[in-house]
Amino acid sequence: MSRADRLVELLRERELDSLLVTDLVNVRYLTGFTGTNGACVVTPDERLFLTDSRYTELSKQQVTDFELLEASQALLGELAARLRGRAGFDDADLSVKAHAKLASEVPAEVELVAAGGLVEELRAVKEPGEVDAMRAATKIADAAYSELQGAGLVGRTEREVARSIVRFLEDSGADEVSFPPIVAAADNGALPHAVPRDVEIPAGTLVVIDLGARLDGYCSDCTRTFATGSLPDRQVEAYEAVHIAQRLALDEIRAGTSCKEVDADAREVIESRLGVTFDHGLGHGVGLEVHEGPRLARTAEGALEAGNAVTVEPGVYVPGEFGIRIEDLVIVTESSCDILTGFPKELVTVN
Amino acid sequence: MSRADRLVELLRERELDSLLVTDLVNVRYLTGFTGTNGACVVTPDERLFLTDSRYTELSKQQVTDFELLEASQALLGELAARLRGRAGFDDADLSVKAHAKLASEVPAEVELVAAGGLVEELRAVKEPGEVDAMRAATKIADAAYSELQGAGLVGRTEREVARSIVRFLEDSGADEVSFPPIVAAADNGALPHAVPRDVEIPAGTLVVIDLGARLDGYCSDCTRTFATGSLPDRQVEAYEAVHIAQRLALDEIRAGTSCKEVDADAREVIESRLGVTFDHGLGHGVGLEVHEGPRLARTAEGALEAGNAVTVEPGVYVPGEFGIRIEDLVIVTESSCDILTGFPKELVTVN
Repeated sequence: MSRADRLVELLRERELDSLLVTDLVNVRYLTGFTGTNGACVVTPDERLFLTDSRYTELSKQQVTDFELLEASQALLGELAARLRGRAGFDDADLSVKAHAKLASEVPAEVELVAAGGLVEELRAVKEPGEVDAMRAATKIADAAYSELQGAGLVGRTEREVARSIVRFLEDSGADEVSFPPIVAAADNGALPHAVPRDVEIPAGTLVVIDLGARLDGYCSDCTRTFATGSLPDRQVEAYEAVHIAQRLALDEIRAGTSCKEVDADAREVIESRLGVTFDHGLGHGVGLEVHEGPRLARTAEGALEAGNAVTVEPGVYVPGEFGIRIEDLVIVTESSCDILTGFPKELVTVN
Repeated sequence: MSRADRLVELLRERELDSLLVTDLVNVRYLTGFTGTNGACVVTPDERLFLTDSRYTELSKQQVTDFELLEASQALLGELAARLRGRAGFDDADLSVKAHAKLASEVPAEVELVAAGGLVEELRAVKEPGEVDAMRAATKIADAAYSELQGAGLVGRTEREVARSIVRFLEDSGADEVSFPPIVAAADNGALPHAVPRDVEIPAGTLVVIDLGARLDGYCSDCTRTFATGSLPDRQVEAYEAVHIAQRLALDEIRAGTSCKEVDADAREVIESRLGVTFDHGLGHGVGLEVHEGPRLARTAEGALEAGNAVTVEPGVYVPGEFGIRIEDLVIVTESSCDILTGFPKELVTVN
């Protein structure tokens, strides 16, 4: 069954007669289109794709299962006429302004209904081809860590290391990076979303390195924390706690695992050993976006399904001192999970 | 007068009692904040900035003229209580979903009013410090063209050239690129938004190279079209027509020039000489974003003001054959314009 056919099943469940898809990642997922202006309308018996004249050629190559319509650069007016009945739209994507324009142009019988998240629901369960792309992207990312291990870290600036990672990933076949790499030594590592600084990495500290490659649109996401020499006992203990929490969480992951409980269990390991917790979720889905569903977090609902692709990334952050995060990307299976990331998780020293 | 003070003047004109600013570029412009989650509320006598705990430290360093409030990662709930009276919001930025949440949480006396574009109005007129950043970013971009001239183009793939441009700009001090460079030879040049291909650049063709550096947040934007050997007469004539149109437009630009007329005049040169037109506007504003106000286009309204930073970029696109675009970035002055771009515009041959 095609992705659009599966989407129609979801429309039926929500009693929608049509769905307007405007988020470009969702459009790409459904149609294959990679340009920067496009939208589609899905009804039980229609698959319409609209783009503007800049993308006519590209859409002919990429969009094979949808009827192609060329529109002006303002697609919404032309889409409005194609909607029917109870018409869903993505309320998390459509702006108030765009919605007002759409509402003023739909036929009188059309009722616009907030219906975000339907395509995202499909995207959360990966097909084999999607897993293949993510596995290949992860292999490239693994090689980047090996390269860093050889090239060394001490005396290089965080920023220069981050740039060298981008270049290595590109030169190794990635389309681009999934996100700007994080290279955060010592106290900078205590910020989960640290920005690489023009500061030299010292010896005898921890360096958090979070990176990902994108291949055929699909992201990888991985974090390793290196030592740049011998560390205070407390940092070694903290590393061990994060490592144990991460392995425990991996052991728990399979179809049916509660997204909230696996987060709680990993968190509990770190709290009981170190008396601290981490201020972000244990993990998140990855695919065409580096952050998508499902989430593993304190506020998450539901359970994992076979085919989910999620990160498992507990951490410890001691403000002003250091940070540690260990992150793998895994595919959930019926009985366990398939860990895509291959680089070792034992504390590795890189001088 | 501070930017926030000037914004309050605009609020008064629109009879607004408060403004919620959610677009992160607008937030940066008003407050200096460069993180990925923040918003502000401006009233005649309050300047409030909200971010979450990840950005507490950063905002203390960057945001000096606003009262700092720490919130959860979902800022909207906490912002709602700070709005008052007729409260403007950016209807082009706020999603339908976020607006619904905001509306459910504002005090009963608050009336939410669509008010996009107010901060953008301020941003369109650059301050001297902003011009300095754009001038420095443009200098780096100029050097990239010189570097290409030396390194050559023939036999390299478009994609490899594009990557080498990114690396050169970064290594020359740019924070990053303003946008992924366009390197488009022969028929690919006929697409104004061409994506670099894994295709070798041949001799005896035209290559459109559109690139920009970002420095301190500010973008540069420039296009040059090189020849890779001797060209058919028709292509040389087309180049000359674009060059003449571009110089004519530059000659017309000053405070008071109609944004629609300068577009029409440049277009007329190319139409009268070649019998074709180009399917994009003559130019656009540049600043913290590579596309902002004002626009020079067939559908543009209004006139240029001193301090506007705009591109001037007529082109010719012959589907299946070749494309030409010549683009400078200029600052509008009372009597003329200050052309930031320094690289020559005569047809340059690069082998």
